[in-house]
Amino acid sequence: MPEPVLIDGQWRDAKASGTFRAVNPRTTQDIPGDYPISSWDDLDAMLNAAVQAYRVMRLLPAETLAAFLDLYASKIEANIEKLAEVADEETALGKSPRFMNGEIPRTINQLQQAAAAARDGSWSSPTIDTGSGLRSMLRPLGVVCVFGPNNFPFAYNGVAGGDFASAIAAGNPVIAKGHPSHPKTSQMLAELAFEAVKETDGMPHAAVQFFQRSSRDDGAKLMADHRNAALGFTGSRPAGMALKKACDDNGKLAYLEMSSINPVVLLPGALEEKVDEIVEQFIGSVLLGCGQFCTNPGLVIGLKGSGIDTFIAKVSEQFNAKAGGTLLNEAGQKSLSQGIEAIKSVGATCVTEGKAGEGFSVPNTLLKIEGSKFLSDPEKVQTEAFGNSSLVVIADDIDQLLAVVRTLEGNLTGCVYSATDGSDDEAYSTIEPDLADRVGRLLNDKMPTGVAVVSAQNHGGPYPATGHPGFTAVGFPPALRRFAKLTSYDNVREGRLPELLQDTNPGSAWRWVDGAYTQADVGAAVG
Amino acid sequence: MPEPVLIDGQWRDAKASGTFRAVNPRTTQDIPGDYPISSWDDLDAMLNAAVQAYRVMRLLPAETLAAFLDLYASKIEANIEKLAEVADEETALGKSPRFMNGEIPRTINQLQQAAAAARDGSWSSPTIDTGSGLRSMLRPLGVVCVFGPNNFPFAYNGVAGGDFASAIAAGNPVIAKGHPSHPKTSQMLAELAFEAVKETDGMPHAAVQFFQRSSRDDGAKLMADHRNAALGFTGSRPAGMALKKACDDNGKLAYLEMSSINPVVLLPGALEEKVDEIVEQFIGSVLLGCGQFCTNPGLVIGLKGSGIDTFIAKVSEQFNAKAGGTLLNEAGQKSLSQGIEAIKSVGATCVTEGKAGEGFSVPNTLLKIEGSKFLSDPEKVQTEAFGNSSLVVIADDIDQLLAVVRTLEGNLTGCVYSATDGSDDEAYSTIEPDLADRVGRLLNDKMPTGVAVVSAQNHGGPYPATGHPGFTAVGFPPALRRFAKLTSYDNVREGRLPELLQDTNPGSAWRWVDGAYTQADVGAAVG
Repeated sequence: MPEPVLIDGQWRDAKASGTFRAVNPRTTQDIPGDYPISSWDDLDAMLNAAVQAYRVMRLLPAETLAAFLDLYASKIEANIEKLAEVADEETALGKSPRFMNGEIPRTINQLQQAAAAARDGSWSSPTIDTGSGLRSMLRPLGVVCVFGPNNFPFAYNGVAGGDFASAIAAGNPVIAKGHPSHPKTSQMLAELAFEAVKETDGMPHAAVQFFQRSSRDDGAKLMADHRNAALGFTGSRPAGMALKKACDDNGKLAYLEMSSINPVVLLPGALEEKVDEIVEQFIGSVLLGCGQFCTNPGLVIGLKGSGIDTFIAKVSEQFNAKAGGTLLNEAGQKSLSQGIEAIKSVGATCVTEGKAGEGFSVPNTLLKIEGSKFLSDPEKVQTEAFGNSSLVVIADDIDQLLAVVRTLEGNLTGCVYSATDGSDDEAYSTIEPDLADRVGRLLNDKMPTGVAVVSAQNHGGPYPATGHPGFTAVGFPPALRRFAKLTSYDNVREGRLPELLQDTNPGSAWRWVDGAYTQADVGAAVG
Repeated sequence: MPEPVLIDGQWRDAKASGTFRAVNPRTTQDIPGDYPISSWDDLDAMLNAAVQAYRVMRLLPAETLAAFLDLYASKIEANIEKLAEVADEETALGKSPRFMNGEIPRTINQLQQAAAAARDGSWSSPTIDTGSGLRSMLRPLGVVCVFGPNNFPFAYNGVAGGDFASAIAAGNPVIAKGHPSHPKTSQMLAELAFEAVKETDGMPHAAVQFFQRSSRDDGAKLMADHRNAALGFTGSRPAGMALKKACDDNGKLAYLEMSSINPVVLLPGALEEKVDEIVEQFIGSVLLGCGQFCTNPGLVIGLKGSGIDTFIAKVSEQFNAKAGGTLLNEAGQKSLSQGIEAIKSVGATCVTEGKAGEGFSVPNTLLKIEGSKFLSDPEKVQTEAFGNSSLVVIADDIDQLLAVVRTLEGNLTGCVYSATDGSDDEAYSTIEPDLADRVGRLLNDKMPTGVAVVSAQNHGGPYPATGHPGFTAVGFPPALRRFAKLTSYDNVREGRLPELLQDTNPGSAWRWVDGAYTQADVGAAVG
């Protein structure tokens, strides 16, 4: 029998239309253990149970949600070693430092930060206008589906990552989908989550449900269903676009993080000042995790001259010196190779000649292209080549560099390296507004990988990097705001208001009262 | 020659595919004056000019945007009498009190509130995390198209209303579309807006552009265009859905306010306590402006019994005693009649027998239906009958009433009238969570018409009332947040940050600094 799925408070056999196995990316061999591809019957049952769970959750005190998140975090912490081992076998990303010292601690921290945000309540923008009798705040939204990606088995996992934590903290039940690249990791997390649900007084057992996989059609049907409210998605653009369409056509919210090539502009003065440092930072960023980061610098833009030539030569040397890392799976290997070919077809040439490494692997690849060729088919040349690959665009002058920037699609990040002596400042001013418009996060003198989980983070950006440029998927409290609806209470009797909107502030939430933020009670004397 | 359009800082002849005239709804006769139906050439030219204007606007100090909005408001004030006359001829809504004492002062106030929000800056959520070097805020989005509705020639006008004010205050140029029901009113407003643009130092002349009308296909093409960023729309569901689809399919933001029947639940105790007062409030709300309000109470839900029977009898009497008011246009008259027929086809019966009034008019219409029949085709029976009409649903018991509530589509508002002696409290608790989930604004003991322009307002709600339940179209500062993108600045040098994110707070904006709201400078001693 295949492994079970978590539906309506029970681990039960899936009504499966088929099964699949995880593959060890290092050996390219199957890992024992069959996982179910759920049929619509499973999804339908989850939707029904989630609606019931929502009716309980929308009335729960925030403390209950927070207690669950904290307990779940502690269970992950208690099982960190086992989780890291299983995930490493499924992904080849490395037990340590990647999982033990990086991603799992971050995941635990995210759950705890989401718990703290839920307890605090400021995330929900409580707003009180005493003159009109109107009070408003963000309230839970409904059933949220969370689909995680292949490249972060913990921090973005559908049943443990930032979207999961945000949706729960905002008061919504989650229907989580695993990822076929790491089914056992996801299942272990779902088991821990469900244990925590059962041990948290008041949490409905269907607050967290979990399945491994479905057909694409059933996935779209799940989005379109009237019982669903929203999607949190991290993954490939084709998969994201299909789900987005099903959501859009039926008035469901789709928060997606789809693709990004994360342009890095290297201005001449910066290259002159510190090319070795930039090369080192670039290599670290582009090869980390075999380049399988949403914020991987896939596009470098420079001006014709010796600076960029030196950069290319030094990077090529280091790329050639190392075999390519192991990619997550065969699909990733194929997609990376195809992406490189698509970029070449526009006129880019490959300047590296390294070797592939163990298992699913592609040689470290550096491409270069002239600005004019880039501009001849800017859409195709921006194909995401997800992995250990990057493209350098060499512009003739600052006008052409600006023209390149103006053809960029929406991205998660954009960086500019500039000199400290002011020699690049004019160029910076020329390109900054258009670059900033096209990215969620603008960096100076720093590579984009590494996403700090802080409130000023924006892991988001203009379409097609995401589906809505006003929201971030990382950083609390803002990430909670995605999975909520605004409700205004007009002339509603005091005792019937949500606690956070009553005259007495139940805790220390910041509330916008008559035009200013305050933690005080309504009517309290101002000190 | 037809009247001109405002493109790229000039009133010029449209490249028109045809013309149209306004119609006086009282006489049903054309009003002299031909207005152009713009071809794609006009829209294309506006998009090009708007992109150029955006490149200037995104760098403008907020003070410039605010000064423009204030100046424009003062110009409307100076022309209030003439505007009210023209709008009354085109809409029959009444020069006074409607326009002179209500809608135009509200419009002026909205522009001024948007100006104040722009100056203050708190709307943009400046967020500073000193430990990580990350700082974020909402920044301008790009070119915003605003399409206004037929029923508010000022407060929601594409070139003067809340969406217009919000988009400009957030730093975006607007391409505004008039409405064929009031072309002269819209043109006069666009003229005043453009005068104010020209008189405001620094505002690019294409910050405000204006056309009267286009084909539906060209409207969709405008949304889909890569130069467009977002739509602010108020109007009918079919028109809104077509534009939404064009936006969705191309990753553009669509903020829509489409349709709403605004359920009002009358609990038995409330009817016993004060049926006459409720009847009076209901009549005032449902017949005001001939019922042509987005928040018109089109659905009343009660429990079987003498209370609701008395309510129906008293309302019918008053409905019959007055002739129907004058509707905005022939399309509105036809659509209202069709809506009433759709509701009847599910089994509702008409309990009134009044007369139509002057011009485009339909008799005041009260329908009633049993709960079981409502539940037999809840979608069709929720057809919006926009105007002086309402449907009373009589549920057998509270369980059936809850079942009715659970079939409701997303609405702008939902009201509950309940007794003051506590006798309705159990019923209130039973239905409140599901009703609140389905509406943007929940009211107690109060009819929904009348939308206060305050920060705790939510003129929004779940789909299909709008396209996103997290945003409000009315109320400052929140309404500005729709037309903005989040940008995070990572390690960006101090002097390159937007002023609002620099250590020194340039004014008195509230900023979220290291986990708390403050108006202080970063690093300032805490008192």
